[in-house]
Amino acid sequence: MDERIREHAAVLVDWSARVESGDNVVLSVGPEAHELAVAVAEKLGERGANLLSTYSSGELSRAYLQAHDDEFDENPAHELALYEEADVYLSLGGGRNMSATADVPGDTHTAHRRARQDIREARYETRWVSTLHPTRSLAQQANMAYEEYQDFAYDAILRDWESLADEMANMKALLDDGSEVRLVSSGTDLTMHIEGRTAVNSAASVEYDSHNLPSGEVFTAPTATEGEVTFDVPMTLRGDPVRNVRLEFADGEVVDYDAEQGADVIADILETDAGANRLGELGIGMNRGIDRYTDTILFDEKMGDTVHLALGRAYDACLPEGESGNDSAIHVDMITDMSDESRLEIDGKVVQRNGRFRWEDGFEAE
Amino acid sequence: MDERIREHAAVLVDWSARVESGDNVVLSVGPEAHELAVAVAEKLGERGANLLSTYSSGELSRAYLQAHDDEFDENPAHELALYEEADVYLSLGGGRNMSATADVPGDTHTAHRRARQDIREARYETRWVSTLHPTRSLAQQANMAYEEYQDFAYDAILRDWESLADEMANMKALLDDGSEVRLVSSGTDLTMHIEGRTAVNSAASVEYDSHNLPSGEVFTAPTATEGEVTFDVPMTLRGDPVRNVRLEFADGEVVDYDAEQGADVIADILETDAGANRLGELGIGMNRGIDRYTDTILFDEKMGDTVHLALGRAYDACLPEGESGNDSAIHVDMITDMSDESRLEIDGKVVQRNGRFRWEDGFEAE
Repeated sequence: MDERIREHAAVLVDWSARVESGDNVVLSVGPEAHELAVAVAEKLGERGANLLSTYSSGELSRAYLQAHDDEFDENPAHELALYEEADVYLSLGGGRNMSATADVPGDTHTAHRRARQDIREARYETRWVSTLHPTRSLAQQANMAYEEYQDFAYDAILRDWESLADEMANMKALLDDGSEVRLVSSGTDLTMHIEGRTAVNSAASVEYDSHNLPSGEVFTAPTATEGEVTFDVPMTLRGDPVRNVRLEFADGEVVDYDAEQGADVIADILETDAGANRLGELGIGMNRGIDRYTDTILFDEKMGDTVHLALGRAYDACLPEGESGNDSAIHVDMITDMSDESRLEIDGKVVQRNGRFRWEDGFEAE
Repeated sequence: MDERIREHAAVLVDWSARVESGDNVVLSVGPEAHELAVAVAEKLGERGANLLSTYSSGELSRAYLQAHDDEFDENPAHELALYEEADVYLSLGGGRNMSATADVPGDTHTAHRRARQDIREARYETRWVSTLHPTRSLAQQANMAYEEYQDFAYDAILRDWESLADEMANMKALLDDGSEVRLVSSGTDLTMHIEGRTAVNSAASVEYDSHNLPSGEVFTAPTATEGEVTFDVPMTLRGDPVRNVRLEFADGEVVDYDAEQGADVIADILETDAGANRLGELGIGMNRGIDRYTDTILFDEKMGDTVHLALGRAYDACLPEGESGNDSAIHVDMITDMSDESRLEIDGKVVQRNGRFRWEDGFEAE
């Protein structure tokens, strides 16, 4: 076994999920994530955790959903009970085909998702972490050779998370103390309010309210968005390519939009509900191990030199006690490159210019 | 997809487990049983059942068990809750390597098994069915080419179960009315009492108290075994080949044993507990779709022209209300060929001679 698979498992179990003896763990295994699952099982055995593995296959889901009449039972008791009694949920993504459910109608997905809200919430109450095993299918999505993709993925995953967390604490402090964020880049001049919000130092560990491995971003929940933004990082949304989406905001809401490609997908997203027209997240990518786009949001949104904004649901961790934040059935991230002719300001002070943070070498104050 | 996979799924879901709308189903998927799992998922969607898939991998188990200190928590709450809320449990066996756990110490297996008794019982209270997806690893175990093995397996699985159940009802009636069974074959002359016991017409359906697909046997729980028996069908027990095991019984207990190969495995089995020295099952194979030995007990013990006896635990379905039957932590089946110079008698009446049942063409009464 590639030693990096064992290291990935160790980071996931010890740093990310903080697994301890006696923890009841649900391990979700993608069909091509078998090797990582073996390494994680070994680590869980060492820790004295209790392991139940589930099988997460797009092909199985497709077969089930296509055959079903769409009248789904609400929160089936066996699955709900499993997550209610679980302490930790680890999702090891990795399938054979990123498009395995491409022909399942959107309405079916939505109906299935809606019927399982309590199950999802029970899962979010565990120490949950999502990661990906680098597969050939992900390599293909990234237009990369398999071995090249493995190197890329492990560079992103096997970081010194403690020291990245220390660096990201700078950004969190600036956001926590700040009132207004301004993003300026080609096709982008946007302001957002962040007063009273708490930024998350997303250092790939439940100890930091961070549930992705890799992570490496600082995010908060903005309001009162004004201006325009262009998402110039290419991506696939709901199976369709989207390019250069431009959104115009007034008083916190999207008032106009267009796109070079995929405008109909954006239209669908905006029509979901009222909250889909407002931002739920401003995230600042700070993982320098991620040096290129691979068309997988788990990696892309953490890339250094980028910021991302999400239409839809805000994360509770960012909100003041008792405030509910933007509510929506969706959370769709889109990414802007900040490496060139760009700046990020907090209350008028430049915090990042052309991809360099103010505490980094090469930062230009003016 | 091979149409036989879909037929296998249909038999499993509809005939074997009697799945209905709203059933909470746990589907256990072996790493190489993916295709069958897809077909079963489709069928479960059609029926409107609720699907949760678990992943059952020998390689994962090995990694976990090898790393663990053997102090296993009793009945982890998340897994117990899952089965307590389940209506149906379908196990789709199929791995890459029949010997995946060969180097896990027996004591570790035993400790893990012992800590999970409530989970096992909760699973046995569902409508549970075990089946196998014909894999290359099973083909290799059977010394058969893959395509040849597929033909063999589907011949065994895709029977006219209703008509086999009707035929097996003859045998069940004889056993239910009988008091004493005698087996005579080369190296075998054994008598057992079966008075007051109820035979199971094991027709591969929970409706018949039958939990294997394929099945095709009639079995009961004998007592007061006397005489000797030679198990001349070669098999692998706990990873080791055993050949021509001979057991001698007096007053229901094993008083002597030997074997051409694997005598130490038999010694280990007999030492487990007191019940391991008594019979828990007499089974009569009646599936004529199984025409050869493949070194997989699920198939071998159902073969027409064979009987099998199990050391250890008796099935509750065979016992009078309130009687507990032979109790043991184990249930180990071994098989005797009855096709030649053999007879099976009930209360002195020959019911099977040289592999022919008395209701079949070619049966010789004398």
